[in-house]
Amino acid sequence: MRIVKIGGHVIDNVTQLNQFLSDFARMKGLKILVHGGGRRASELSRLIGLTPQFQDGRRITSEQDLEIVTMVYAGLINKNITARLQSLQCNAMGLSGADNNCILSNKRPVHPVDFGWVGDIKSVNAKAVQAFLMQSITPVFCAITHDGNGQLLNTNADTIAAELAIGLSAYYETELIYCFEKRGVLENMQDENSVLLRIDRDKFNALKKENLIQEGMLPKMHNCFDALEKNVSKVIIGNIGVINGKSKLFTTITL
Amino acid sequence: MRIVKIGGHVIDNVTQLNQFLSDFARMKGLKILVHGGGRRASELSRLIGLTPQFQDGRRITSEQDLEIVTMVYAGLINKNITARLQSLQCNAMGLSGADNNCILSNKRPVHPVDFGWVGDIKSVNAKAVQAFLMQSITPVFCAITHDGNGQLLNTNADTIAAELAIGLSAYYETELIYCFEKRGVLENMQDENSVLLRIDRDKFNALKKENLIQEGMLPKMHNCFDALEKNVSKVIIGNIGVINGKSKLFTTITL
Repeated sequence: MRIVKIGGHVIDNVTQLNQFLSDFARMKGLKILVHGGGRRASELSRLIGLTPQFQDGRRITSEQDLEIVTMVYAGLINKNITARLQSLQCNAMGLSGADNNCILSNKRPVHPVDFGWVGDIKSVNAKAVQAFLMQSITPVFCAITHDGNGQLLNTNADTIAAELAIGLSAYYETELIYCFEKRGVLENMQDENSVLLRIDRDKFNALKKENLIQEGMLPKMHNCFDALEKNVSKVIIGNIGVINGKSKLFTTITL
Repeated sequence: MRIVKIGGHVIDNVTQLNQFLSDFARMKGLKILVHGGGRRASELSRLIGLTPQFQDGRRITSEQDLEIVTMVYAGLINKNITARLQSLQCNAMGLSGADNNCILSNKRPVHPVDFGWVGDIKSVNAKAVQAFLMQSITPVFCAITHDGNGQLLNTNADTIAAELAIGLSAYYETELIYCFEKRGVLENMQDENSVLLRIDRDKFNALKKENLIQEGMLPKMHNCFDALEKNVSKVIIGNIGVINGKSKLFTTITL
């Protein structure tokens, strides 16, 4: 059972996205796709005169921003990916965390930083997701969850992928694959080929100490270690070539 | 088994929508909700500088319009309704026709009028929908379908409701309920209480001849008769009070 998360830049590039979806559709076995949002949400914000706000690279989600990400992530991107996968004989079903109560979140506390309508995952309904897999459905999750009280929440897609992997490892040997525009975690950001083939906790701490891990990579790495500690069998970070075996260069995370 | 469709004006009014959703959540037995779009799509269009185009009251769907209705119907409205129903202990799951290949459409021919990215329903995957009902899931359909070749299509919500009712009547005794802002089909548009309690084909033809049926009601009535001819047990048109029994005044359609 494999959970693949695709990041923003892959989604923004139509050619890359379609290549990825073709490869994903051909992947054998049980699978789940989790997608981020990409630049479309910020573009739409600007179109209607809003200025997206970020803190440490993470979006601050105002009420209007929540409407925009709900439209872009759960509507535009999720349904287009689903329709495309369906055309490729992959029986996709687009989902937010609210649908079938798949993912419950808590609104993030407003201290030390008020991120607005952002949710931190409380629980994943792995049984419900597993039931879909048993019906030959390929779930496609967007980065929107709910709090159970009627409130939608913007939620980090990397974390959704990790939590789904953790939840489903109760049923399957589960592999978590983070796909993005780079070939893996790079030792030298200027060199696309300086992929670290294996990172364990010690290596990670050493890299962090030397400031050799890019800022956006820190929470992703935490998700990776969290997944491994909670029974996920394998965690990989690489470009879209990893899912069809074309890319031999990628980063494997180990404890 | 009941299929309830709520129309645009109910969705635009937060108080009415929440009242409706509370009543819908309390409805016993198997149920499906189908929702239209309301004014939000047109509002968003205008916000980003587009002018919505209509012909005979039906939206002409350009490429940009399709993006907007996908965002508003499948994203904003569908996920907010789903989250709200979840908070009311109704295990809702938002769906477009693309999800789990539930509803396939063909792009409408461009003659005599080119409506753009509009789809006419080709088939409903009643078996898939029935499987959800068996899992205590309440499907919530928005008015977006797909053509099976990766193309999303804007599709009339009344027709989606009718086709779902027809498809599910193979499994259940099925009732189709159209909820909108009026108490039913009115004999006199100026008199909210002039509800026609029963309309059959003869009555319908007589009303049509005398121009006593509002334009928007014509396709809805055709959907009603179509459903009845194809084994749907009961078809009702009324306001949101019909689903909790508060409204005793509504229109029943018969053959």
